[in-house]
Amino acid sequence: MYIYTIKNLKRKYILFKVSIIGASGYSGIELIKLLSSRDDVRIEHVFANSSNGKKISEIDPSLSTLADIETEKYSPGLLNSTDIVFLSLPPAESMKIMPDLFESGIKIIDLSGDFRLSNASCYPEYYKFSHLHPELLDKAVYGLTELFNDEIKYAKLVANPGCYATGIILALMPALKNKLVSESGIVVNSLSGISGAGKKDSLEYSFNELNENIRAYKITGHQHIPEIEQTLERAAGCRIQFSFIPHLVPVNRGIYATIIADLKSDIDADTLNSLYTEEYKESPFIRIKKNIPQIKNVVHTNFCDIFFETDKKTNKLIIISVLDNLMKGAAGQAIQNMNLMLGLMETSGLIKTEKLYV
Amino acid sequence: MYIYTIKNLKRKYILFKVSIIGASGYSGIELIKLLSSRDDVRIEHVFANSSNGKKISEIDPSLSTLADIETEKYSPGLLNSTDIVFLSLPPAESMKIMPDLFESGIKIIDLSGDFRLSNASCYPEYYKFSHLHPELLDKAVYGLTELFNDEIKYAKLVANPGCYATGIILALMPALKNKLVSESGIVVNSLSGISGAGKKDSLEYSFNELNENIRAYKITGHQHIPEIEQTLERAAGCRIQFSFIPHLVPVNRGIYATIIADLKSDIDADTLNSLYTEEYKESPFIRIKKNIPQIKNVVHTNFCDIFFETDKKTNKLIIISVLDNLMKGAAGQAIQNMNLMLGLMETSGLIKTEKLYV
Amino acid sequence: MYIYTIKNLKRKYILFKVSIIGASGYSGIELIKLLSSRDDVRIEHVFANSSNGKKISEIDPSLSTLADIETEKYSPGLLNSTDIVFLSLPPAESMKIMPDLFESGIKIIDLSGDFRLSNASCYPEYYKFSHLHPELLDKAVYGLTELFNDEIKYAKLVANPGCYATGIILALMPALKNKLVSESGIVVNSLSGISGAGKKDSLEYSFNELNENIRAYKITGHQHIPEIEQTLERAAGCRIQFSFIPHLVPVNRGIYATIIADLKSDIDADTLNSLYTEEYKESPFIRIKKNIPQIKNVVHTNFCDIFFETDKKTNKLIIISVLDNLMKGAAGQAIQNMNLMLGLMETSGLIKTEKLYV
Amino acid sequence: MYIYTIKNLKRKYILFKVSIIGASGYSGIELIKLLSSRDDVRIEHVFANSSNGKKISEIDPSLSTLADIETEKYSPGLLNSTDIVFLSLPPAESMKIMPDLFESGIKIIDLSGDFRLSNASCYPEYYKFSHLHPELLDKAVYGLTELFNDEIKYAKLVANPGCYATGIILALMPALKNKLVSESGIVVNSLSGISGAGKKDSLEYSFNELNENIRAYKITGHQHIPEIEQTLERAAGCRIQFSFIPHLVPVNRGIYATIIADLKSDIDADTLNSLYTEEYKESPFIRIKKNIPQIKNVVHTNFCDIFFETDKKTNKLIIISVLDNLMKGAAGQAIQNMNLMLGLMETSGLIKTEKLYV
Repeated sequence: MYIYTIKNLKRKYILFKVSIIGASGYSGIELIKLLSSRDDVRIEHVFANSSNGKKISEIDPSLSTLADIETEKYSPGLLNSTDIVFLSLPPAESMKIMPDLFESGIKIIDLSGDFRLSNASCYPEYYKFSHLHPELLDKAVYGLTELFNDEIKYAKLVANPGCYATGIILALMPALKNKLVSESGIVVNSLSGISGAGKKDSLEYSFNELNENIRAYKITGHQHIPEIEQTLERAAGCRIQFSFIPHLVPVNRGIYATIIADLKSDIDADTLNSLYTEEYKESPFIRIKKNIPQIKNVVHTNFCDIFFETDKKTNKLIIISVLDNLMKGAAGQAIQNMNLMLGLMETSGLIKTEKLYV
Repeated sequence: MYIYTIKNLKRKYILFKVSIIGASGYSGIELIKLLSSRDDVRIEHVFANSSNGKKISEIDPSLSTLADIETEKYSPGLLNSTDIVFLSLPPAESMKIMPDLFESGIKIIDLSGDFRLSNASCYPEYYKFSHLHPELLDKAVYGLTELFNDEIKYAKLVANPGCYATGIILALMPALKNKLVSESGIVVNSLSGISGAGKKDSLEYSFNELNENIRAYKITGHQHIPEIEQTLERAAGCRIQFSFIPHLVPVNRGIYATIIADLKSDIDADTLNSLYTEEYKESPFIRIKKNIPQIKNVVHTNFCDIFFETDKKTNKLIIISVLDNLMKGAAGQAIQNMNLMLGLMETSGLIKTEKLYV
Repeated sequence: MYIYTIKNLKRKYILFKVSIIGASGYSGIELIKLLSSRDDVRIEHVFANSSNGKKISEIDPSLSTLADIETEKYSPGLLNSTDIVFLSLPPAESMKIMPDLFESGIKIIDLSGDFRLSNASCYPEYYKFSHLHPELLDKAVYGLTELFNDEIKYAKLVANPGCYATGIILALMPALKNKLVSESGIVVNSLSGISGAGKKDSLEYSFNELNENIRAYKITGHQHIPEIEQTLERAAGCRIQFSFIPHLVPVNRGIYATIIADLKSDIDADTLNSLYTEEYKESPFIRIKKNIPQIKNVVHTNFCDIFFETDKKTNKLIIISVLDNLMKGAAGQAIQNMNLMLGLMETSGLIKTEKLYV
Repeated sequence: MYIYTIKNLKRKYILFKVSIIGASGYSGIELIKLLSSRDDVRIEHVFANSSNGKKISEIDPSLSTLADIETEKYSPGLLNSTDIVFLSLPPAESMKIMPDLFESGIKIIDLSGDFRLSNASCYPEYYKFSHLHPELLDKAVYGLTELFNDEIKYAKLVANPGCYATGIILALMPALKNKLVSESGIVVNSLSGISGAGKKDSLEYSFNELNENIRAYKITGHQHIPEIEQTLERAAGCRIQFSFIPHLVPVNRGIYATIIADLKSDIDADTLNSLYTEEYKESPFIRIKKNIPQIKNVVHTNFCDIFFETDKKTNKLIIISVLDNLMKGAAGQAIQNMNLMLGLMETSGLIKTEKLYV
């Protein structure tokens, strides 16, 4: 048994206030779970129009006794003393309230796609809406923490990445940036748990329609394509071209991305490993794996596990990345961004990375 | 290799025409699957108001090339040449169209609860509606084929039993009829696959709400209670009293009923086995088992597997019955009833019980 | 009601005797289920060394009262009166008993990979064994019924294709044969239900390790690669090159293959549709679909559903094929081959394709 | 934003050292996950004979970077500086090493059943082994934290309760202690997730055997019966008698217990609610619920949710309790006991119950 005595400690406890707009969906609830177990932040308001007045613990009874906060109807005036606000809203909703929010100076993390794309003209094509406030698009920092750490620290508005996009960009970035693979002809197959589809009254997402079933969807033109393109092109310094086919498989959580790209030159596994390890040496949530990943090793965590193998016969590089779509793919990454924006340790509330003892 | 030559065969092929009202739900589709693979019946009309005009194979693409029949809007005149009609409708719908149908003389099998109870006063209590045509209740035969085989053969209107009720009555009937167990204090826990809840647009039945989850519902007052009471009381010749607690578990199909009753006297497993075997000796779909049943052994079949064990310590009889809620608990049993009503072999289209060779 | 009288029918009933070597695995049991419901074949012997003497219905209690046949220890002499034998054995077992079997003249369908490859040198590389009887390899016909229908009819030994291989070859053959896509750079991701892994005592395949999980395996060098290559190269008339990555997803049955290939020229969906429809016009188990396939539409059937979509942006053709790994991917296809080899209708015992009435 | 300054804090940090014997099973891994995220305890040794030398993160790759501790072969001398040890071993293993451990004076929490029963004669009947050290049975405190809080604080050896037993005792204790229900004729049906069966190489627990399946097991004589009896009899002050039927359902985690007992007198829901609330007012992990519980609300937590409803018709009390078999049913409860034994807050490392702010 060790006994430590810390003398004359003068420590400042800083307590930040956070609010959530759109608290009743799967990402909103995950945010509340992550925030409510922390000592350095306090949930001030949770806004959920449809479940106005209900307690969060009525919406998700697992939070009973843990988060008995009442949901409120959103009104901008209620955010006066909030330090940072999360928006977890359906498509095309964030952009409506963003001008006022942005003006107010409050720090903002938007979990929707409304501010992920720098090119407003992609919205009609991929999101099927015209952007109401294209002038705000270049105010937003794309919140892929591992790539844009420094920008996120000073951002006023962070656009939290899409769940598929996160796993695909993290897997491909080092290979593209280092010119190891061809920029075209990349093929990505992703398999997603059903929570990725959101919380809805729908026969299509009912248990009997999805259990013991597998199906692809949006075989061309999925809305995460442009954010992957713009981010990887920035990393690669040139145009890239890839196919992306998402599938639904009967698990609650998790995304499995299997990526195939043409190797530009002969490269061995060790070199690849060093390169990826180096690229992510400051990234506590990226684990470069020596065995084929499984989603059970990342669900309920903020990790993204990455693995690669080369196929001599076809001269291809196969990269697999796995993450939890509600954690690193949504709420976990949003917390990671919040930590940076508030000057806290990147891992706070997500993993313990320090020990009090040697 | 055997070669048979059958000379001078004079055989009549009889082809019956059947129609289905309410063809788009899980039971309706199961009926179509069972009927469309037969040579002795022909599906004449399928009525489905909500999906009017759609082909059955659009509603359930597994039936593509197998059942490309168009659904129609129901109108009584369309049934003129139909021999037998199945009603697979939501609660309180069958009773609205029953007077005309019954008058027309067509044979009727109703899969809803609308005509299962002989006492009209139970409807408001258990089904939350007042019966519009109580005068027709005593025209209906309760379609539990194993118990009411002879009545079903000559019935004009058969009320097909509830899925829970079927497994519970079949398990308890021999014990109660033979006075082996106490008529009161019986406890029944049933576990049902999700298809039992029907096909609906509902968050409550969405994959993420039910997968990796278990929940009880309607802990008191489930609507199958009165049909179980009236049927078992008829078998036992006295009042019976039991508790019934249904649960949802994350499987597509199957009902697992675990029943506990007080033994009236000391009885050994062999005696019980003989008694149950004797009781069901004419029932090709009842299998008395020596091992604990599992639903995987009955799903996609019309079997009800029954098992029992006595507990010396508590002097209880434990009976377990398992069946497929869409087969023996709905469409399979409806076909079994149809077979009897049309004078066909009870097992036709459900299992092959004869062989052409010795 | 129709009444037919068929006068003076002189019909020969032919009853074939079949035996199964290796009857206790998932494919063996599926064969027994398919065979035991038929009138034109009779199961003569079932051989299962490990469960010697047990009834099939003890190995799979769902077959209780349906297939109470006793398993026997295999001995060649027992097959004297059998017309056709199925081998459903672990890798490298069929080849040991094949010389005697082949010599005996009995018709043989082997469900293993032992006789699928024409080039014996592929066995050490892909199957990790050296072939004991390479001289028999060219006696075997590759049993992909849709492609080699005529050869199968007169074959003595049919090598039933692999489950992954079946779905991939059926999806790609028309495109390659008609030179629509590039012969290299094809990428195939397949998702398989767990029954594909076989029946085994293994922590790796235990419920808790696979439920709520997804994982790829054999990312390079899966043993189905050479049979896909040899078959597609025969169709295309030139070398082809593809990547194949299999994944396990938590469903019992089904294979979902997502295939991406470079289009050689501009081709529209209608042309593709006509071409595939034409190619498979004699194939009752191939369904060319207009909507994205789902495995729930093919499980427990012998269908292979095929869908395609072109991606203008990347100039790729995406083809999806789905099938049940135990049916079209194993036992169902074996039965389809048996039907041809015995001169029966291709669909016998699998679907009803004729009606007695107009 | 609040800023606190805490002046002249003189605080002692106490760090306890814990070891785990039997670290590679599901409960052992869960213990490591719970312990490795804490600041007040440190994992000193993990012993796992079968995986000797392997890192914990190789056994469970989800712990990669979080718990890269090497497993060791157990030897008593290695525990010299350990404060508390967890035993998570197969049946009949703890009792072999207990005399030495107990003698050493180290605090012990045994997760097996080896020291749960005060009556040694129950072991041959229920556990199928004779106890080697019956003299140690009365040294052990039954670690149901809510009932034996004070005894646990000063215990040297805690026998951590069985997963089924925990949920059943917590649900029934207040009703029996307050003489609300009859002491005999109680019926308990429990539904367990598959992790309850442990980690094993076994066809019986393979995915295909359990997915889409339900089965009861040990219908009479389950080994948790005597610990439930002895604990409830102590609470009730008289003999009790109940039936217990466990079932496996296809979820990874969770136990759903549905209990039916005869009400001794007319009692309304409000009175029951007050009584249960009062009984558990000091128990942070018991939640008395107003809605029917679901396991998804307790998995991955240490809560036990309890619900009751009276059935006027049958005069029965129905109680439902749900918990996570690996948390409140094993590792979570073991941590709760450790907290008490070490003088820490009962909820430490399990939930945050205090806030730094008002």
